[in-house]
Amino acid sequence: MIVRNHPSLLELFFILRSSVLQRIWPQLVFVMGLSTLIVAGHALRPGLVPTLDGMPFALIGISLSVFLGFRNSACYDRWWEARKQWGGMLAATRDIARRSLLLEARGEVGAAARHALLGRLIVFIRLLEAELRAPARAAAGHGSRFPVDAVLREAGAGLAGARAAGLVSDVEFSLLDGSLADLSRAATACERLRATPVPFGYTLLLHRTAYLFCLLLPFGFADVLGWGTPFVTGLVAYTFFGLDSLSSEMEEPFGTRPNAVPIAAIASTVEINLREALGETDLPELPQPVDMILL
Amino acid sequence: MIVRNHPSLLELFFILRSSVLQRIWPQLVFVMGLSTLIVAGHALRPGLVPTLDGMPFALIGISLSVFLGFRNSACYDRWWEARKQWGGMLAATRDIARRSLLLEARGEVGAAARHALLGRLIVFIRLLEAELRAPARAAAGHGSRFPVDAVLREAGAGLAGARAAGLVSDVEFSLLDGSLADLSRAATACERLRATPVPFGYTLLLHRTAYLFCLLLPFGFADVLGWGTPFVTGLVAYTFFGLDSLSSEMEEPFGTRPNAVPIAAIASTVEINLREALGETDLPELPQPVDMILL
Amino acid sequence: MIVRNHPSLLELFFILRSSVLQRIWPQLVFVMGLSTLIVAGHALRPGLVPTLDGMPFALIGISLSVFLGFRNSACYDRWWEARKQWGGMLAATRDIARRSLLLEARGEVGAAARHALLGRLIVFIRLLEAELRAPARAAAGHGSRFPVDAVLREAGAGLAGARAAGLVSDVEFSLLDGSLADLSRAATACERLRATPVPFGYTLLLHRTAYLFCLLLPFGFADVLGWGTPFVTGLVAYTFFGLDSLSSEMEEPFGTRPNAVPIAAIASTVEINLREALGETDLPELPQPVDMILL
Amino acid sequence: MIVRNHPSLLELFFILRSSVLQRIWPQLVFVMGLSTLIVAGHALRPGLVPTLDGMPFALIGISLSVFLGFRNSACYDRWWEARKQWGGMLAATRDIARRSLLLEARGEVGAAARHALLGRLIVFIRLLEAELRAPARAAAGHGSRFPVDAVLREAGAGLAGARAAGLVSDVEFSLLDGSLADLSRAATACERLRATPVPFGYTLLLHRTAYLFCLLLPFGFADVLGWGTPFVTGLVAYTFFGLDSLSSEMEEPFGTRPNAVPIAAIASTVEINLREALGETDLPELPQPVDMILL
Amino acid sequence: MIVRNHPSLLELFFILRSSVLQRIWPQLVFVMGLSTLIVAGHALRPGLVPTLDGMPFALIGISLSVFLGFRNSACYDRWWEARKQWGGMLAATRDIARRSLLLEARGEVGAAARHALLGRLIVFIRLLEAELRAPARAAAGHGSRFPVDAVLREAGAGLAGARAAGLVSDVEFSLLDGSLADLSRAATACERLRATPVPFGYTLLLHRTAYLFCLLLPFGFADVLGWGTPFVTGLVAYTFFGLDSLSSEMEEPFGTRPNAVPIAAIASTVEINLREALGETDLPELPQPVDMILL
Repeated sequence: MIVRNHPSLLELFFILRSSVLQRIWPQLVFVMGLSTLIVAGHALRPGLVPTLDGMPFALIGISLSVFLGFRNSACYDRWWEARKQWGGMLAATRDIARRSLLLEARGEVGAAARHALLGRLIVFIRLLEAELRAPARAAAGHGSRFPVDAVLREAGAGLAGARAAGLVSDVEFSLLDGSLADLSRAATACERLRATPVPFGYTLLLHRTAYLFCLLLPFGFADVLGWGTPFVTGLVAYTFFGLDSLSSEMEEPFGTRPNAVPIAAIASTVEINLREALGETDLPELPQPVDMILL
Repeated sequence: MIVRNHPSLLELFFILRSSVLQRIWPQLVFVMGLSTLIVAGHALRPGLVPTLDGMPFALIGISLSVFLGFRNSACYDRWWEARKQWGGMLAATRDIARRSLLLEARGEVGAAARHALLGRLIVFIRLLEAELRAPARAAAGHGSRFPVDAVLREAGAGLAGARAAGLVSDVEFSLLDGSLADLSRAATACERLRATPVPFGYTLLLHRTAYLFCLLLPFGFADVLGWGTPFVTGLVAYTFFGLDSLSSEMEEPFGTRPNAVPIAAIASTVEINLREALGETDLPELPQPVDMILL
Repeated sequence: MIVRNHPSLLELFFILRSSVLQRIWPQLVFVMGLSTLIVAGHALRPGLVPTLDGMPFALIGISLSVFLGFRNSACYDRWWEARKQWGGMLAATRDIARRSLLLEARGEVGAAARHALLGRLIVFIRLLEAELRAPARAAAGHGSRFPVDAVLREAGAGLAGARAAGLVSDVEFSLLDGSLADLSRAATACERLRATPVPFGYTLLLHRTAYLFCLLLPFGFADVLGWGTPFVTGLVAYTFFGLDSLSSEMEEPFGTRPNAVPIAAIASTVEINLREALGETDLPELPQPVDMILL
Repeated sequence: MIVRNHPSLLELFFILRSSVLQRIWPQLVFVMGLSTLIVAGHALRPGLVPTLDGMPFALIGISLSVFLGFRNSACYDRWWEARKQWGGMLAATRDIARRSLLLEARGEVGAAARHALLGRLIVFIRLLEAELRAPARAAAGHGSRFPVDAVLREAGAGLAGARAAGLVSDVEFSLLDGSLADLSRAATACERLRATPVPFGYTLLLHRTAYLFCLLLPFGFADVLGWGTPFVTGLVAYTFFGLDSLSSEMEEPFGTRPNAVPIAAIASTVEINLREALGETDLPELPQPVDMILL
Repeated sequence: MIVRNHPSLLELFFILRSSVLQRIWPQLVFVMGLSTLIVAGHALRPGLVPTLDGMPFALIGISLSVFLGFRNSACYDRWWEARKQWGGMLAATRDIARRSLLLEARGEVGAAARHALLGRLIVFIRLLEAELRAPARAAAGHGSRFPVDAVLREAGAGLAGARAAGLVSDVEFSLLDGSLADLSRAATACERLRATPVPFGYTLLLHRTAYLFCLLLPFGFADVLGWGTPFVTGLVAYTFFGLDSLSSEMEEPFGTRPNAVPIAAIASTVEINLREALGETDLPELPQPVDMILL
């Protein structure tokens, strides 16, 4: 996540960091160069370079922007859902930290059970972070194929033990287990978001048509815009490629690109919050953005 | 589901597998051929082929893209809901696997009840997979008309038995049954998605207008675009037919086309996860994409 | 609901059944006839028929398609919510059928209570079907003004009796009553959808502007399209009137037009499912589409 | 809410009641009159009245329709949520009427408690109706600043008393209180909808631009449309002002304009339903529309 | 939140307060001045200032309005969610005030526990208000890093104590804790909305393209609109900059700009409501808008 103050109007035009320009400049240069060539060719030898009427391009461009808008909304919704799931997990761990005070009220054995429970939640959130950011590394070195689920099952086993030992009533058990279920549902939803991108057919169709459109554009505008063509096609290309690029970034909310959901920072927040709830006082600082980026 | 790395910009133009091009190329060739004929006719005998002004086409084309965008969103939402329901079932089976540890804490009879319960869930997910993918085959050879519901009812009967035998309290019963209800709701939602497509009237109206539009297009553009007409109508047709074709694919999320929801793979994941929760160690591999496609 | 296989591309153009063409052909013929007259008048006496520039029409047409798209989405959402509510009721009756196995485990009195409970659900679903399809007839001959709610209250009275008789604990009562509440909420939602259409002002505004637009269209296009005008205005009118007509059909999801939600068929499914859960074996066939239409 | 049969196609053009025309005709007459003046001035003294090219207007008009579409969706969602909340309150009162049969099964004291509970719900729904329709009057003459919440708290106090008297178990208490919570949440949501309109900035921006646009329109179209200008600008103004006016009506779903949510009628339905559930037989008629309008 | 009566049609054009004009007038003046310069330059020395054809601008403008519409919807949804979360917290505190009557029915110790519980909720809502409006100041002077969560945990500890003292059953505990969980979830959601803006890339891309577009616009329109250019580009710029500015205001729903969610007022409402529920009679006035603005 990019963390920065609102830039002034003038700064707005000169920010390069955290702009999509960093990623799409080669394409922009290419489209603008091509435009220049076409306009120049058209000016030197009018008959050589075919030019087209601009109106069909308006039709295609507007249709494309409707469809790009669809993909962009779908991708943004993924990113926002990812952020909501992580916020929901923070809330669920707070619920458990609060509800498990019931255990603490039942003496030392209860307090130990609470300590073990909250400790497992810290392991859980760190494992989930690792699995979403680097699946290959996360899978190694665990006995289970589903390490995230396994640690929740261990927490559940702890609760079942507390229930068997009479530390909690069935209602209290179901209250605590309900929060584990919230965590499990959120973790499964995150796995869904990571494993299932927007269908590849959409990416392919929209990438292709957006690129073909921007490459054809100078042919359609050279006649009416003359030397203004490179600037106008550059603006169109910046808009279309830029939105397309941002959509791709949103599509993978657990990546490590600048706009990704800062799951490492949220995981740290969860851990610090849980340790505070356990009464620890020597707590680390809350995570801060590095170079305006929080991951 | 198509599983592949992000292609480079150049590869993007040459990928044929998993592109809608494989399905819509005959229509594209037809429209581009027709365009060529019209332009040629127009060039040879200007009076013979009627040509039209392009502006009404811009109007129709933009309206159409708004309406195609509607159908596409409706279909995409079906696909995404299907995926969510299957993710939700994975989470619900994990809940049962964790909650039923309560049973295991009550000795051997409880452990046997847990084993039977989780075993029935494996049967459930496999039956649902078969019903959604091949309804005719799935219905054969079962005593029940609703085999998926019947196996959940058997699981419920097992729980009611455990309750009668005093193995679980009423609260614990309701906790476990709540997860069965989650599964039942998700399975019924999947049946809804399979049995109720987007109303046929929409498909008919949008297919027809999209095709009529693309067939009329060369008449409207031949005059202003000349030999550029086939390329531009080809690009329009590729965009419209492509989106239409992708929408149809999304409409049936439980089919076996490349972008379908990989329910066989998820069902295997559920099975492996449940068997691990039962303590089995000799587990099969998690399903892997074959030829970049996971089903 | 229309149940049919995907038509081939060629069939697509010749399907008349289940097409909106059946309903809107008079308007189409009128608009196309008017176009022909205007073009003919324009050709015979250029000064007599005023013709207009097409561009303002593009503006109106595109604005209209944005607004028609809004109404269409609102109507489609009603239809899809109706279908979801009925799917949800199927799931809720399955929940009750499964949960009430608790009663059966408590001897004959419990089994009789379960039998009475599930029987009332069959009455419930049939009453709801009648109320939504033919409110006048459904209201006659019942003691209550809210027959659908009255039968759920009877079911609740049965449960309260079972609770008083000690057949169920309070938790088990609340589990069973929770499913009744699901049914009640879904039934009330269906009454909402039936009683509250999309505000009449929208229908009036959009109907009027769509018709005025299509009637003015030939004046705007006669000049530039000539004899192509009737075809192009026909295509525009088909798109606009067709979408408008489909929206109206979606707006009343409990009607009996071809695309309506097949609530009679779902009610039969619920009944057969419940009777199977009661152990009946002589069950009727599941409802099948008649003439490609399932109601 | 406007309750009427579907008008025939011809009637559609002559309905004045319940049309937005009743509210926007002065603006329409003004815009059409201005158009006539401009066209006349243009015809008499071509150099006097400046005319503009129409294309920039297409751009502004289409952008405006996208933004008006946004505001309209936001307002419609408010109206539909309002209707859902009231439907949800009907369902919640039915839940309480059914669940409180538990009380009745516990003898006369229980029956009296049930009677008092349902009676308070009638007071609740009438107070809420008054507060939403006429906040000033509703607030007068009550001891509390939150009369709607106060009556629910009284109902809760009644339940707490029944719990203290051992009439209900804790689970049964939480079941009944859960329905009170549903009512409380819905009432708070209705207060939110009434107190928080769509931000005033949107209304201001869109009103202004829509009016400026329609006033500039004749300057842009006089040249190309001639005497057709008043009709075309009239159609554009009807569409834009009409949608804007309908949006404003939807924005305040608890007003008393024709398309408002009929909360008085729903409150009567709730009251009659509750009185029937209490066994009363001398029930008033269900509310009927007066002059095709149900409030 | 701006609280004002519906202005008349004429007033609408002269309202300056609470209009975005207050913030965007420098940009508007700049764009309109630039337009005037270009038109003048074009009139004086036709060959000096390059002018462009307007059509590409229609394409860019319409695409831009689709994308601005996306950002605007995303920002509006944030604002509306923020308002819903605060409404939900009001409802949740009402639930606790009502449910905790259970405690009061258990004598003086119970009444004291209720008093402490509700008092903590007042602290909670004030802390949350401070944290959302001025995070830096809110963090100072608290022992905890998460003061909002800490106060809920204290409330939970109070409940756990009441449970240990036998003042509440486990079911009653879970009922009261359930409302605390509602508050915790809403507070965490508010922190999410505050900490996670719409990805900065969108803001950058859309700001830039909207400004570039408005700066290029006079070059495209000077030719066809002449001296009408400054007015038309002014209208376009007012629409685009205005919507962009409103979106930015919606993006930060917890700010102190005029359209922000009035969380201080809602917090006061919560406090007064809770104090009334505690039986206090000397209550302050409900918060009123100052200068038509409620914060």
